[in-house]
Amino acid sequence: MTAMQLGLIGLGKMGGNMRERIRRAGHTVIGYDRNPDRADVSSLAELVDKLEGPRVVWVMVPAGAPTQSVIDELAGLLEPGDTVVDGGNSRWTDDEKHAEELAARGIGFVDAGVSGGVWGLENGYALMVGGDAEHIAKVQPIFDALKPEGEAGFVHAGKVGAGHFSKMVHNGIEYAMMQAYAEGWELLESVGSVTDVREVFRSWQAGTVIRSWLLDLAVNALDEDEHLERLRGYADDSGEGRWTVEAAIDNAVPLPAITASLFARFASRQDDSPQMKMVAALRNQFGGHAVESAE
Amino acid sequence: MTAMQLGLIGLGKMGGNMRERIRRAGHTVIGYDRNPDRADVSSLAELVDKLEGPRVVWVMVPAGAPTQSVIDELAGLLEPGDTVVDGGNSRWTDDEKHAEELAARGIGFVDAGVSGGVWGLENGYALMVGGDAEHIAKVQPIFDALKPEGEAGFVHAGKVGAGHFSKMVHNGIEYAMMQAYAEGWELLESVGSVTDVREVFRSWQAGTVIRSWLLDLAVNALDEDEHLERLRGYADDSGEGRWTVEAAIDNAVPLPAITASLFARFASRQDDSPQMKMVAALRNQFGGHAVESAE
Amino acid sequence: MTAMQLGLIGLGKMGGNMRERIRRAGHTVIGYDRNPDRADVSSLAELVDKLEGPRVVWVMVPAGAPTQSVIDELAGLLEPGDTVVDGGNSRWTDDEKHAEELAARGIGFVDAGVSGGVWGLENGYALMVGGDAEHIAKVQPIFDALKPEGEAGFVHAGKVGAGHFSKMVHNGIEYAMMQAYAEGWELLESVGSVTDVREVFRSWQAGTVIRSWLLDLAVNALDEDEHLERLRGYADDSGEGRWTVEAAIDNAVPLPAITASLFARFASRQDDSPQMKMVAALRNQFGGHAVESAE
Amino acid sequence: MTAMQLGLIGLGKMGGNMRERIRRAGHTVIGYDRNPDRADVSSLAELVDKLEGPRVVWVMVPAGAPTQSVIDELAGLLEPGDTVVDGGNSRWTDDEKHAEELAARGIGFVDAGVSGGVWGLENGYALMVGGDAEHIAKVQPIFDALKPEGEAGFVHAGKVGAGHFSKMVHNGIEYAMMQAYAEGWELLESVGSVTDVREVFRSWQAGTVIRSWLLDLAVNALDEDEHLERLRGYADDSGEGRWTVEAAIDNAVPLPAITASLFARFASRQDDSPQMKMVAALRNQFGGHAVESAE
Repeated sequence: MTAMQLGLIGLGKMGGNMRERIRRAGHTVIGYDRNPDRADVSSLAELVDKLEGPRVVWVMVPAGAPTQSVIDELAGLLEPGDTVVDGGNSRWTDDEKHAEELAARGIGFVDAGVSGGVWGLENGYALMVGGDAEHIAKVQPIFDALKPEGEAGFVHAGKVGAGHFSKMVHNGIEYAMMQAYAEGWELLESVGSVTDVREVFRSWQAGTVIRSWLLDLAVNALDEDEHLERLRGYADDSGEGRWTVEAAIDNAVPLPAITASLFARFASRQDDSPQMKMVAALRNQFGGHAVESAE
Repeated sequence: MTAMQLGLIGLGKMGGNMRERIRRAGHTVIGYDRNPDRADVSSLAELVDKLEGPRVVWVMVPAGAPTQSVIDELAGLLEPGDTVVDGGNSRWTDDEKHAEELAARGIGFVDAGVSGGVWGLENGYALMVGGDAEHIAKVQPIFDALKPEGEAGFVHAGKVGAGHFSKMVHNGIEYAMMQAYAEGWELLESVGSVTDVREVFRSWQAGTVIRSWLLDLAVNALDEDEHLERLRGYADDSGEGRWTVEAAIDNAVPLPAITASLFARFASRQDDSPQMKMVAALRNQFGGHAVESAE
Repeated sequence: MTAMQLGLIGLGKMGGNMRERIRRAGHTVIGYDRNPDRADVSSLAELVDKLEGPRVVWVMVPAGAPTQSVIDELAGLLEPGDTVVDGGNSRWTDDEKHAEELAARGIGFVDAGVSGGVWGLENGYALMVGGDAEHIAKVQPIFDALKPEGEAGFVHAGKVGAGHFSKMVHNGIEYAMMQAYAEGWELLESVGSVTDVREVFRSWQAGTVIRSWLLDLAVNALDEDEHLERLRGYADDSGEGRWTVEAAIDNAVPLPAITASLFARFASRQDDSPQMKMVAALRNQFGGHAVESAE
Repeated sequence: MTAMQLGLIGLGKMGGNMRERIRRAGHTVIGYDRNPDRADVSSLAELVDKLEGPRVVWVMVPAGAPTQSVIDELAGLLEPGDTVVDGGNSRWTDDEKHAEELAARGIGFVDAGVSGGVWGLENGYALMVGGDAEHIAKVQPIFDALKPEGEAGFVHAGKVGAGHFSKMVHNGIEYAMMQAYAEGWELLESVGSVTDVREVFRSWQAGTVIRSWLLDLAVNALDEDEHLERLRGYADDSGEGRWTVEAAIDNAVPLPAITASLFARFASRQDDSPQMKMVAALRNQFGGHAVESAE
C-alpha cells in the first residue's frame, strides 16, 4: 500500500470515525470542520494549501445546501487534476450537476454512498461509488482503507450518480427489512401463545432464512428493553426512503413494500391521523356509528 | 301488490326502521326483540304462532352466536314450506350451514345483505340476496317494500351465501372509497396553497369523476365541523372488511387498496405502534439515531 | 349574463368541446390550434389581435413544454390588464412560475383544473381554480358557462396553484376509487357462488353506500362486455396520480390506498415482473422450490 | 450426549435430509414413508413396534389431511408416555386439536416449526417449538442434533401452537425481506446510470445495514443468471404467508409490507389482471382513453 494524503471536510459522527479508520490504515488525513475543536485546519483554503497535488478532497457534510456550498468553494480553490469525493447523503440528481461544475475546471468528481453507521469504525464502511474509472483510481487507497476486510463492501456502480443511487436503494431496502421484522415482532407480541418473543428472535439468528445483521441488532435492542417499553412508536426518515419512492415513480416501478414502510413512518409521527378523522366522520354520517370525540 | 305477513326478529336501529318501511308499504309485521319495549310478541314461539303459513321470518340480529341461536330455535318452531331470511351481517360461510340445517326440516333459507344505514327508512335499502329462486319468490313483496324506488337496489346474486358475499364485497369497496376521500382530504389540508378545502369538496359534487353519495356525506360532515376538530382519528371496523381480505386470500386475489384501508383502521386504534417501536429501536442500534423515549 | 370574448388555445377533444359549450352559452370564442382545420385564426398573434382588451386567453394544451411555450409567446403578445387561464393538466409547481412570468408584464394568471372528460359538453365541467380574486372575476362568465347547472362544480380553491393542486388530488382519489371497484369486481368474479356479478354491480346503483358516477360507468362497461373479455388488464397513468404521491411524500402524508392504485397500474404494464423474478430466484435458492422458466 | 431412538414419518426432501443429520449425530432413526424405496419399515404399526418405549415419533408430512391422518393413526398405535412431534408446516390452529386428541390417550405433543431448506443438512435446522417442557425434554437430544452449532437456532416459544406460530411469522417476515430485495433490484435494473447491478448486490454483502443470508442467496442467483432472464416473474406461496396475514387480521395488527409481498405473488401468477381490466374499462368510459384490446 502506498500511503496518501486526504483532505476530509466534515468531522461529525460519521466523518470523525472515518478519519480515524483512514489514519489507522496509515494515510494522512487533514480534516476541516466548522467546529474548530475537531478541525486540523481553520479554513478550506488552508486545507487545500496543505495538500500536495494532485489532491483528493472528501466532502462529508449534510446533503443539499451545505454540500453545494462546499463544492462551490472547492471549485474555486482546487486545481486541474484534483479530485472531489462527495461521501454525504446527496440525492443522486445533484451529482451530475456537481460533476459538471468541477469538470469545467478540470477537477474530477466521484460520488460515494457510505453505509456503516456507528459500527463502521471497527467493521469498515460499505462503499458504492459512481464516476469515471480514472477519478476513482485516485481515491482507491482511501476506499480500501474504509471498506471492510474481504471481497465485498466496495463497488464501482456506474457513472456519476450511480454511487448515491445505489446507496439510496440500499436504504429503501433497509426500510422494508426493518418494517418486516417490526411487523413480525408486533404480531408475535399480540398473541398469548408465544410467551417469549425475544427468545424467538434470538433463535432466528442461526439456521433460518431471515438471519441478518438487522436481526442481530433487533436482538440487541430486545436485550436492552425486552418489550421496547422505553421507546415511543415514532420513526423519522432521512430522505433516501422518499427519494427511492420518487425514483420508482419516475421509472414506473411498483415498490409496494418499501413504500408501505415509508408511509408507516409518516403515520408514526402524527399525534392524530387527519385521514382517519374523515373515515370516522363518514362512518358517523351513514351509519350513526359511534365515533370518538376529541375531548 | 299483495299484502303479506312477516315475522321480524331483531328490532334495533336497523330492524326497527325496516319494520316501519315495510308497514308503510302495507304489509303486516309481527316483530320480536329481547327488549320487550320494542316487541309485538313476547317469544319466538308466539311470533311463529301468530303468523299464518307458509310463514316468512326475517332474522335481523348480530352475526355469529346470536344469529345461530335464533336459527336453531326457529328450526324447531317452523314447519315445512316456511322460509327464513337472514338479513344480518352474517359471514357468507355461515349461510350454507344454516340453509342445510333448515332444509333438513323442509324450511327454506335466503341470505340477504342489506345496505342503507340510517338513511334506509326514507331512501330504501339496497338488497343483495342469495338462495333458491323458489324461496326468494316468497319474500319478494318484502324485498320490494324495502328496496329503493326504481330499477336498482335489489339483486338475486346467486346461490345461498351469494347475498352476504356480495354485501361483504360492497363493504370492502366502501372501505377503500372512504380511505380514498380521506387521503385526499388530508393531503389538501396539509398544504398551504389550498385555503378552502371544504369548498373544494363541495365543488366536486357536480361534474367530476369522483362525485358520489359518500362525497355528499363528506360535505355534510365538513359543514358540521370544517376541520373535523371534534373527532379523533379513530375508526372501528365491523367484520366485513376483514372477511373481504380473507376471501381474497382464499382466492389468491390481490386487494391492495382495500387491505390498506383496513390496516389504516387497525393502526388508528393503537395508542402507540409496537411495530414502530421496533423500527425506532433498529434505527437507534445501527445509527445512533435520536429516538423518542416513552417518558 | 354579459356575453364576453374568449381566446382559446388548443382545440383537441377537450378544448373543442369546451369551445362548443361556451358558445352555446352565448359567448364569443376565437380558437387557435396548430391544426388549421380546427382553428379560427392562423396564429397566436392573430388571436390576440382579434380580441378586444382587456383580453382573456385560455390555454388548453398538454402540460410541460407545450404549455410553457404558449405562455412564453403570450407574455410577448398580451398587454397589461389581460388575463391568461391555464386549463390544462399542468403540475401545480409550474403555476407560480407562470404567474410570475406574466405578472412581470402586468398580465394576470389563473390556474384551472378541469374535470369532466367526454361527458363535459353536455353535463358541464367541474372547475377548480387558483389565483387572485381580481383575475378570476374577469373569467367568471366563462367559468359559469362551463360548469354544470346548480351550486357545485366550481371552486376558487386558493392562491395560484391551488386549482391544479385540487384537480391533482381529485385524480388521486379517482385512482383509488377505480381500484376499489376493480378489486371488488375481481373478487366477485373469482368465486363460484355469485353467478351474476354484473347484476350485483347494477343493484348497487341505488340505496347503497357505494353508489357513484364511477359505479354507473362500471355498469355501462359491463353492459358492453359482461366479463371485460375484450380488454387487456393494462392501465396507463396520466401524471396526476404520480404527482399526488410525490406531493404526499413532500408533506409526509401517508397515502396507502392511492399509492397502491398507482403501483397496480405500473405493474399492469409489465409483460413480466422483474421483481417477481428475483422472488422466484430466491425461493429457488433456499428451498429448491419449483420456478417457471422463461422458455 | 445420550443416543436415542426416533421414529420419523415422511422422508421427502426435508425429512430425508433430517434423518441423515440425526444419524450423523449418533441417534437411531427408524423411518417410514409411503414410498417403500425410502422407508425402513413398511407401516406405522411396524415403526411403533420397533421403537422402544417411551417412544418419540416425528411427523414430517404435508399439513392438513395428511398430517391429520398420521396423527389419528398414531393415536391408536402409541402408548401413554410416548411423544409425537409435528415438524411439518401445520397451521398453528391445528396444534391444540392434535394435542388434545393425543393427550386423551396420555400421549404428549410438541409442534416444531423447522427452517433451513436444502441447506439444513449441512448448516443445521432452526427449530421453533411449542408445548409442555416435559414433552420437549424427551425430544431435546433430537432437537440438539438438528439445530445449528452455537447458541441460536432453537427456541421453546411457548405453549402448544407457539412453535408453528413462530415459524409462520418467520415466513411472513421472509416474504417481505425477499420483496424488499426484489423491489430494490428492479429499481436498480430500471435506470441507466447503474451499470453493474450484480456487483452492487455483491458489494452489499459486507459492511452494509442490509447484509443477510438472503442477500448472499441473491448474489448466488445473479451469478448464475445475471439479469434473471431464464426465469419468469412468477412466485408461488406456500400457506404461511396467507396465515400470517389472517392471524394479523384476527388480532387487528396492521401488516402492510408483508401483505404487499403476498399480494405481489398473487398478481405474479395472473396471466392478465381482471381488476386492471376494470380500471381500463372505467378510464375508457369517462375519458375515451385508449385501452388495449385483448386481441
